[in-house]
Amino acid sequence: MMKKLKAGILGATGTVGQKFVTLLREHPWFEVSALGASEISAGQTYGQSVASKWKQSAPVPPKIAAMRVRECRPEIMDCDFVFSGLDAAVAGDIEKNFAAAGMPVISNTKNYRMEPDIPLLVPEVNPGHAALIPLQKKRGWKGFIATNPNCVAVPLVMALKPVLDEFGLSKVMVFSMQAISGAGYPGVPSLDILDNIIPHIGGEEPKVETEPLKILGSLERGKVRCADFAISAQCNRVAVSDGHSLNVSFSTRKKTSVAKIRKALENFTALPQKLHLPSAPQRPLVYLDGDFRPQPRLDRGAGGGMTVSAGRLRECPVLGFKMALLGHNTIRGAAGAAILNAELLFKLGYIKQR
Amino acid sequence: MMKKLKAGILGATGTVGQKFVTLLREHPWFEVSALGASEISAGQTYGQSVASKWKQSAPVPPKIAAMRVRECRPEIMDCDFVFSGLDAAVAGDIEKNFAAAGMPVISNTKNYRMEPDIPLLVPEVNPGHAALIPLQKKRGWKGFIATNPNCVAVPLVMALKPVLDEFGLSKVMVFSMQAISGAGYPGVPSLDILDNIIPHIGGEEPKVETEPLKILGSLERGKVRCADFAISAQCNRVAVSDGHSLNVSFSTRKKTSVAKIRKALENFTALPQKLHLPSAPQRPLVYLDGDFRPQPRLDRGAGGGMTVSAGRLRECPVLGFKMALLGHNTIRGAAGAAILNAELLFKLGYIKQR
Amino acid sequence: MMKKLKAGILGATGTVGQKFVTLLREHPWFEVSALGASEISAGQTYGQSVASKWKQSAPVPPKIAAMRVRECRPEIMDCDFVFSGLDAAVAGDIEKNFAAAGMPVISNTKNYRMEPDIPLLVPEVNPGHAALIPLQKKRGWKGFIATNPNCVAVPLVMALKPVLDEFGLSKVMVFSMQAISGAGYPGVPSLDILDNIIPHIGGEEPKVETEPLKILGSLERGKVRCADFAISAQCNRVAVSDGHSLNVSFSTRKKTSVAKIRKALENFTALPQKLHLPSAPQRPLVYLDGDFRPQPRLDRGAGGGMTVSAGRLRECPVLGFKMALLGHNTIRGAAGAAILNAELLFKLGYIKQR
Amino acid sequence: MMKKLKAGILGATGTVGQKFVTLLREHPWFEVSALGASEISAGQTYGQSVASKWKQSAPVPPKIAAMRVRECRPEIMDCDFVFSGLDAAVAGDIEKNFAAAGMPVISNTKNYRMEPDIPLLVPEVNPGHAALIPLQKKRGWKGFIATNPNCVAVPLVMALKPVLDEFGLSKVMVFSMQAISGAGYPGVPSLDILDNIIPHIGGEEPKVETEPLKILGSLERGKVRCADFAISAQCNRVAVSDGHSLNVSFSTRKKTSVAKIRKALENFTALPQKLHLPSAPQRPLVYLDGDFRPQPRLDRGAGGGMTVSAGRLRECPVLGFKMALLGHNTIRGAAGAAILNAELLFKLGYIKQR
Repeated sequence: MMKKLKAGILGATGTVGQKFVTLLREHPWFEVSALGASEISAGQTYGQSVASKWKQSAPVPPKIAAMRVRECRPEIMDCDFVFSGLDAAVAGDIEKNFAAAGMPVISNTKNYRMEPDIPLLVPEVNPGHAALIPLQKKRGWKGFIATNPNCVAVPLVMALKPVLDEFGLSKVMVFSMQAISGAGYPGVPSLDILDNIIPHIGGEEPKVETEPLKILGSLERGKVRCADFAISAQCNRVAVSDGHSLNVSFSTRKKTSVAKIRKALENFTALPQKLHLPSAPQRPLVYLDGDFRPQPRLDRGAGGGMTVSAGRLRECPVLGFKMALLGHNTIRGAAGAAILNAELLFKLGYIKQR
Repeated sequence: MMKKLKAGILGATGTVGQKFVTLLREHPWFEVSALGASEISAGQTYGQSVASKWKQSAPVPPKIAAMRVRECRPEIMDCDFVFSGLDAAVAGDIEKNFAAAGMPVISNTKNYRMEPDIPLLVPEVNPGHAALIPLQKKRGWKGFIATNPNCVAVPLVMALKPVLDEFGLSKVMVFSMQAISGAGYPGVPSLDILDNIIPHIGGEEPKVETEPLKILGSLERGKVRCADFAISAQCNRVAVSDGHSLNVSFSTRKKTSVAKIRKALENFTALPQKLHLPSAPQRPLVYLDGDFRPQPRLDRGAGGGMTVSAGRLRECPVLGFKMALLGHNTIRGAAGAAILNAELLFKLGYIKQR
Repeated sequence: MMKKLKAGILGATGTVGQKFVTLLREHPWFEVSALGASEISAGQTYGQSVASKWKQSAPVPPKIAAMRVRECRPEIMDCDFVFSGLDAAVAGDIEKNFAAAGMPVISNTKNYRMEPDIPLLVPEVNPGHAALIPLQKKRGWKGFIATNPNCVAVPLVMALKPVLDEFGLSKVMVFSMQAISGAGYPGVPSLDILDNIIPHIGGEEPKVETEPLKILGSLERGKVRCADFAISAQCNRVAVSDGHSLNVSFSTRKKTSVAKIRKALENFTALPQKLHLPSAPQRPLVYLDGDFRPQPRLDRGAGGGMTVSAGRLRECPVLGFKMALLGHNTIRGAAGAAILNAELLFKLGYIKQR
Repeated sequence: MMKKLKAGILGATGTVGQKFVTLLREHPWFEVSALGASEISAGQTYGQSVASKWKQSAPVPPKIAAMRVRECRPEIMDCDFVFSGLDAAVAGDIEKNFAAAGMPVISNTKNYRMEPDIPLLVPEVNPGHAALIPLQKKRGWKGFIATNPNCVAVPLVMALKPVLDEFGLSKVMVFSMQAISGAGYPGVPSLDILDNIIPHIGGEEPKVETEPLKILGSLERGKVRCADFAISAQCNRVAVSDGHSLNVSFSTRKKTSVAKIRKALENFTALPQKLHLPSAPQRPLVYLDGDFRPQPRLDRGAGGGMTVSAGRLRECPVLGFKMALLGHNTIRGAAGAAILNAELLFKLGYIKQR
C-alpha cells in the first residue's frame, strides 16, 4: 500500500473547508496533514475553531478535531499539496504564495479560474487542460494553481459535453434554482428564503455565462480557445439545503433528435472512470426516466454526490431542446470537484510526494 | 347605491372557490347568493363543508358559513351570474349547462379557454376579446362562458403586452417557480417539496406555451388571430405558499434597449384602471429596482395581489433581453382574475341583473 | 378631530422599528414624527437606511421613507413620546436619557422590564400596574419608561389571566415553537432552520419563567407582588415566519374542569376592549374548536395579529390541564403590544401633548 | 459464513416497507426473500409498484426491484419470518394469519402492541420481555408476533431507562415536534406544514402516554407490570423531513442532580451492544454538549439513525429536570427498530431457519 500524500486545507474552517475535511476522511490516496485558516485564534484546535459552525451531518473526525489550525503560510504547513476553499477576498495572495513556494494548489475559489495559464478543470470534460500547468513557470512559480469551476457550471458542462462533441452547440439558456449551502454560513438569512425565492445571486450569472466556454474550449498551442456559443444564465436562490437544479434550453449546430441526444447523454463516460479515480462516480451522468426527476431530495446523493442527474429532455419551441439537470453543489460543485482534480493531477504526475 | 348583483360560485368548497368567497366578502358590486359544489353532502352548510379544508387566513364570513351548499344545477341556484372554480374533470358539462340555461359563467377552469368563440380574457390585455361572447349564441346558449388564463400565463402576458405593442416579439422563454397553492388541497405532499424542487407540473407547460398567444392575439372578423411568436416553458414546483416567480427571456422584432423596454413596462396602464374596476389595482404592473426583487414574500401582496411585479430587466446574450416577474397565483392568477373579468363584463353590459 | 400625538421611534430601522412604522401608518391617535437609530449614516433618509433590509410585506410609507433618520438624542427628536425597539445592548442608556429628559418611553426592550418601579404592561392583564409610573420620579426622571413583555410571555399571560382569576394557578409548564422573525434580521441562518429545529433560544427561557409572574402579580402599596406559582419553559426555534406556538400544561389551585376553564377563556374580555383602544382586538382571546388549531398560518392574523388563539384544552395526566396557544410574535408580542400600551397610557393620562 | 435467513416484508410498498428494503440491503444475517402488499396489481414487480412513490434517497436495489409483489398470505411467501409495515387498518388479520401459520412476525404496527402476551420490545430497554412469546401458543399460534413501539416512545424510553433504573420516575411530560415522514406518503399536505406548525397528530398522544409504561414495566410471573409513573404528551407536526425532537420534563423518585443524571445517560449501554447485533449502534444514547443540540439536521443520522441524542439537561422549576431528545423516526422509531428486534430474537433463538 502506497504512502498517502499529505494534503493541506486552506480555509479549513469555512463551509467548503468542512466539506474537504468530511470527504477526505477515508481517502485512499490523500490524508489531511495541515489545516490553515485566514482568521485564526492562535493555538486553537480545529475542533474548537468549528465548534459553533460545523454544519456537516457527520461529526468532525476526532483526529482532525485535535489538529491545530495554522495561518495560511506555506512554510509552516507540512504537506505535498493544498486544497483551497478560501474566500475570494483573501485567496488571491495566499494561493499565489503557496504556488510560488512550490506547492500545487487545488483551488475551489474563483480568483484564478479565467487566467489563461490556469486550468479550469472538470476531469470528465477537459482533462487535457492540465497541460497548461507547466506554463505557470513563466510566473516564476515553482508550484501551480489548478481550479474547478462554479457550482452551476459543473453540472452544466458535464451534460453539454457529450452534446457538444456529437452535435455542436450554438445557444444555451440556463435557469438555476440554487441551494442555500452554496452561500456558506451564516449565508442566506432564513427570513429571506422561507416561503420565498430570491431571483438573484451576486456575481453568479457572469460566472455561469463564461466559465463553461473555457472548460469546453480546445487547447491549441498552449492556449485555450473558448467554445464558440452563447450562454445566458438566470440564477435564483431557493429553499433547498443541497443540490442545484437547472432548466436548460439549447440549440445544436447539427440537426438531431431527442432520442439521439438522450443516447449521447446516457453513453457519456470519461477519463476519470477509465482511470478509476477514487472520487469518480461509476457514471458521471445519469439520465432519469419520469417527468418528476431529477429532484434534489432523491437525486443529489447519486454517486456519492459526484454524479450529475439529467431528465425531461424534450423539444423546445424556441431553441430546439430543453432538459432538467441536477448537481450536488458542495460535492460535485465544490469540494468533491477539487478532490477529483487532485486525483487526476496525481495520476498525471503533476502532484507528487515531495 | 345600486343593488348588488347576485353571484353564484361553482366549486365553492375547493381552493379556488374559497378564494372567491374570501375576495367577494366586501365587494361593492357583487354579493354571493348561491354556493354550488360537485360533490356535496345533502343539507350541509358551507361552514360544515369546508370545516376541515378551509385554508384561507381570514375565517369563513359568518353569512356565507350559514348558507347551504347545493348541487351545481342552474335551476336551483338563484343568481345573476356564476363564477366557476370547478375541477376540470367536471367543469365541461356543468359550465355548459349553466351557459345554455342563460347564465353568464365566469370560469377559472381550463376546459373552454382555447375554444374559438370563448374569450380568454385579461382585462388589462385583451378586453376587446369580450366581443366573442355574442358568437356563443350559435351554440344555442342563452348565456355564455368567459374564461381567465392559467396562473403563469397571466403575469406573463401582462408584462409582455406593452413590449409586444411597442417593439414586437419573436421569441419568449419562460421558466417558472410555482407556489404550492396552485395545486389545490391536499395538493403537493410535503415530502415532495420540503427541501426540494419538482421539475414538472402536469399539463402546465402546454398551457403556458399556447394561452398567451390567444390572449395577445388580435380579434379579426370574429376570430382571434393568435400572436405570432414562439413560447417555450419550463415549469417547476417550489416550497413557496403563494406567488409564482418567472424568469423570462425574449427577443423583440424591433431593435430596442433595456431603458426603452423598462419605460414601456413602467408606463403600462389599461382599461380596468380607466374604468376604475373595483378589483383593478392602481398599477397593473410595477417595476422594482434592486437586484433582489421581485420576490414572493415582499411582493406577492402588491395591489391586493392584483399587481404583477417585474424587475432585473437586462440584456440576454441569447435572446436579447431577460427579466424576472412575479404574480400572485391564486389572486391575479385565478379567483381575482375571474372577478376582474366579471367586473369588466358587467361594465360592458354582458352581465346584468336578471 | 383631535390633533395627533407626535410619536418618535427609537431603533426605527431594525425589525421591531419597521413593525412600528408599519402598524402606525394610519393610526387614529399617533403620527410618526421622528426616527432614531443607534447606528446611523449622517443625513440618510429612512428609505435609504432600510433599502436593503426592509422585510415587511407592505412597502415603506412614502412620507416616512422621506424622513431623515437621527441619532437617538431627546433634544433633537421632536415628539410627545417615543416607542423603543432598540437592541438591548444600547437600550439601557438611551431609554434612560429620554425618560430623564421628560419623555414617556414605551419600550419593547428587555432592559427595564423587571425593575420594581417600571410597569411591565399587558393592557388586558395588568393595566393597574401603570400606577408604578409616578414612582419613577424618585429616579429624578421627568418622563418615564413603560415596557411590554417578551413575545412568549404575552400570549401566555393572556390565556393564564382568566384561569388565575377564577381558579388560581400553582404550576405552569410551557413549550414554545418560535418563529424566525423573533430573531430579527439577518437573524437565524437558513442552514440552521430549513428542515430543522433548534432546541434553544439564547436568554429566552429565563424571561418566560419570570416576566409572567410580575405581570400576573398584584400591586400592593406601590410594589408588585409577583404571582405565586412556578413556571418552567422550554423554547425552540422552528421554520415558521411569524407566530409563536405554545403547548402549555398547568395545575389550578381550585378543583375545576375542562368545561369551566374553557368558559373562562371564552368569556375573557378586559379594559382595552371597554375603552375601545384603537389597537385592541374585539376579542383578546379566542378559543378555536377542532384538534388542528390554533396554527400559525390560519390563526396568527386574528384580530390584526392582536388576538391570542387557544385550542385543544384537555386534561393533563401530570399537571391537570393542557392546551395549545398561538400569538403573533412581532405584533401582539412586540410592536403591537407597545402601541396598545401607549394607547392605554394616553387614555389614562400618562402620555399627553407636550 | 452462515446462510442468511429469509425475511419477508408485509406492506413492502409503503413508506415503512421502503425503509425495510433500504435498511436490509446489505444485512449480514437477513435477506429479503418475499414482498407482500395489501393492495397489489397482479404480476407487478416491486420496481413497478413503487415507481411513483419511492421516497428513499438510495434507489431501489435492482434485485429487489425485479421481485414480484405478492398478496400477504403466508402460504405463498417463502420466508423464515416476516417484517410488517402494514397499515393498522389491515394489519390485525394479516399479522394474525402469519403468526397462526407458524411465522414469526416482527411488526411495526400498533395493533398488537398493548396485548398482554405480545412483547413491545426495545432491545436496549426490555429484552427480557421476549419471554412473553411462548405465551402466544395459548392463542393457538404456531408462530408469534413481536412489536416495536411508536416513534416518539422509542427515544423517550431509551433516555428514561437509565434514569428510571437509577433514580426512579414519578412524572414525565413530553412535547414532541415530529417529522413529516412519520405520516407516510402522500401524508401531510404541504399547504398544512410550510411556514406552519400543526398542534395535533391523530392518535399519537395516547400511544406516547401508554406504550412507555409497558416497555419500562417489569415482567412478573408471565405478566408485564406497567411502570408506575404518569406521562403527559403534547404532539406537534413540524416542517422537518426526518427526526422527531422532544422536550422532556420529569420528576425522579430519589433525590438526584443534573450531574448524576447526565452520567447515567452517558453510561447507558445495553444487551444489543454486548451481543454486537448488526443494527445496534455502538452507543445507544449520546449526550451532546452545547445549547443548540440535539437538532435534526446534525444529529438524526447518528449511529446510522439508531442512536438517540440527548442534550440540554438542566433543572426544571416545576418537575425537577428537563432535557431535549432526538430520534430518527423512520429508522430508530420504525423500520430500524423492527430489524433490531429481529436480530435480538434471532440471537435469543426465537427466530430460526425453518
